[in-house]
Amino acid sequence: MNEKRITLAYGSGGRLTHQLIKDIFVKHLGNEILYQMNDSAVVTLNGRLAFTTDSYVVSPIFFPGGDIGKLAVNGTVNDLAMVGAEPLYMSLSIIIEEGLSLEELEKIVLSIKDAVEESGVRIVTGDTKVVEKGKADKVFINTSGIGVIPNGIDISGNNAKPDEVIVVSGTIGDHGIAILSARKDLSFSADVKSDTAPLNRLVKKMIEAVPEISALRDPTRGGLATTLNEIAQASNVGIEIEESEIPIKDSVKNACDLLGIDPLYIANEGKLIAIVPKDKADLLVEVMRNSPYGKDARIIGRVTREHPGKVVLITRLGARRLLDMLSGDPLPRIC
Amino acid sequence: MNEKRITLAYGSGGRLTHQLIKDIFVKHLGNEILYQMNDSAVVTLNGRLAFTTDSYVVSPIFFPGGDIGKLAVNGTVNDLAMVGAEPLYMSLSIIIEEGLSLEELEKIVLSIKDAVEESGVRIVTGDTKVVEKGKADKVFINTSGIGVIPNGIDISGNNAKPDEVIVVSGTIGDHGIAILSARKDLSFSADVKSDTAPLNRLVKKMIEAVPEISALRDPTRGGLATTLNEIAQASNVGIEIEESEIPIKDSVKNACDLLGIDPLYIANEGKLIAIVPKDKADLLVEVMRNSPYGKDARIIGRVTREHPGKVVLITRLGARRLLDMLSGDPLPRIC
Repeated sequence: MNEKRITLAYGSGGRLTHQLIKDIFVKHLGNEILYQMNDSAVVTLNGRLAFTTDSYVVSPIFFPGGDIGKLAVNGTVNDLAMVGAEPLYMSLSIIIEEGLSLEELEKIVLSIKDAVEESGVRIVTGDTKVVEKGKADKVFINTSGIGVIPNGIDISGNNAKPDEVIVVSGTIGDHGIAILSARKDLSFSADVKSDTAPLNRLVKKMIEAVPEISALRDPTRGGLATTLNEIAQASNVGIEIEESEIPIKDSVKNACDLLGIDPLYIANEGKLIAIVPKDKADLLVEVMRNSPYGKDARIIGRVTREHPGKVVLITRLGARRLLDMLSGDPLPRIC
Repeated sequence: MNEKRITLAYGSGGRLTHQLIKDIFVKHLGNEILYQMNDSAVVTLNGRLAFTTDSYVVSPIFFPGGDIGKLAVNGTVNDLAMVGAEPLYMSLSIIIEEGLSLEELEKIVLSIKDAVEESGVRIVTGDTKVVEKGKADKVFINTSGIGVIPNGIDISGNNAKPDEVIVVSGTIGDHGIAILSARKDLSFSADVKSDTAPLNRLVKKMIEAVPEISALRDPTRGGLATTLNEIAQASNVGIEIEESEIPIKDSVKNACDLLGIDPLYIANEGKLIAIVPKDKADLLVEVMRNSPYGKDARIIGRVTREHPGKVVLITRLGARRLLDMLSGDPLPRIC
């Protein structure tokens, strides 16, 4: 094989590091702030800012519907959007296992470029490290992000109030099942793509139409059930959701049956939960359905005064089942 | 052995992840912004901001003079300080290899706590991932940071001008040699501690006394020689340094002789290079020497019109030697 591979020297901080930064990162992701090339990027901002970070260790790094690069950009864009912020600037820090091909690295960076362009965020600072073969798994990516929160917006997981309504933006479980289907060691394949997507433009439209939104959260690791538990606890309210109202693709449902896992605990990477006053819920759903990443939006439940801190699922047969947080780990390295 | 160890379930996003965050991270690093516990931290800021990121993969994770936690905080604090910013907020994202003991993790977090307190920065958002045994190396840490740049300050690696003077804050090569001495596979030990330190308070005093500072850079990976090359290229100027003026501890010099490596290419984690107008250099050195992390500060060279983009070392014997950027990788995973 003649293809070029990353060696430890690419992480030395010397000539090869500079060449890698120039030939791959700056080439594809360059903008006038990244070009500053100082120890920190310098940007001008005013007001209430959102700041978030996530490391991505998903395995495999390429999967149906995306790859680790797209996931890393969209994930951080979404974390900013979930407090109502407009994502502006992002950092990109990559840990590479010695032996990764430059071709694979460039493929990931091109995917980052696409994701950055779709969401409108800019990568303004970065870092590259290389570790010996066997001391990482191909590539890990950290993205941190900064966004600006419009005046008057106060969206937080502890804002949910009794009688408010719970809206989900679309089908759940797609991402987790897509990752499982891509793992070679599972003799299982489902025709499911990851839902990884930037939700910032959807959120912007939602906030413009319904500034009264109380809480937003993207149900990633731990899935819908865990995220609703977080909101119930933070807001000290109860939550009830209707099993029959939760949108799940048939292929995801079948895969979950086969694997014996519950889709309510599977990670999503392009979905959100909104909690909103009852009288605004229909308007919100309508606005969401006009956006490509909200077209399957629907109301799935309500906030209650009863059983504060707890989430109850009302099954198709009308039974009430306590939905706990995820315990144990059915799906390691899903993001 | 009965000690508790990190399992994959700690990275699931479910109950154990929440418990780990509460019992270790929030317990030791908590502040009112971190307590928000939303997908992003919300902070209010105005003006010119510095934004930076670094991932730390140093091996071993504990070494003379510090550990990966202290390094991760100080490194990002210093990157902010190098554009003149006051470090304010930091993110903390940890990738843990399954099997790390909770005791070791807590030791690292306590070290982070100390470093955070010394520099005055606050950790406001974070992330924890766990990967299978053999898919990482104990622990990798990413920190990203935000700081505010005072009005009127314009410090950048492309600002160096002919006839300006080059000041270094202290002895070079300490960090790299400390890491090598801690590696079990090297039959070598030197009585050298890492110089890892937060330089923000030193920089603040420097800027107050000499706001005309043109450039600041901390010579980490690639060492003094590589960093000076970066400045020479970015500013399109030549740089000359005097070998006899560069402060190096005897123990570091001896270790470098023994290992056959050049201290000018060894990483530092608590030192800086300042480029300053000639008539302000003595004042700057005096101010630096009054600060604990600048007590060995001295002038080591000058900026020239000649040989733009190149760095020349004037040896003890008066010979002129071209100092290139680091090529190859004498010291992998030094930070």
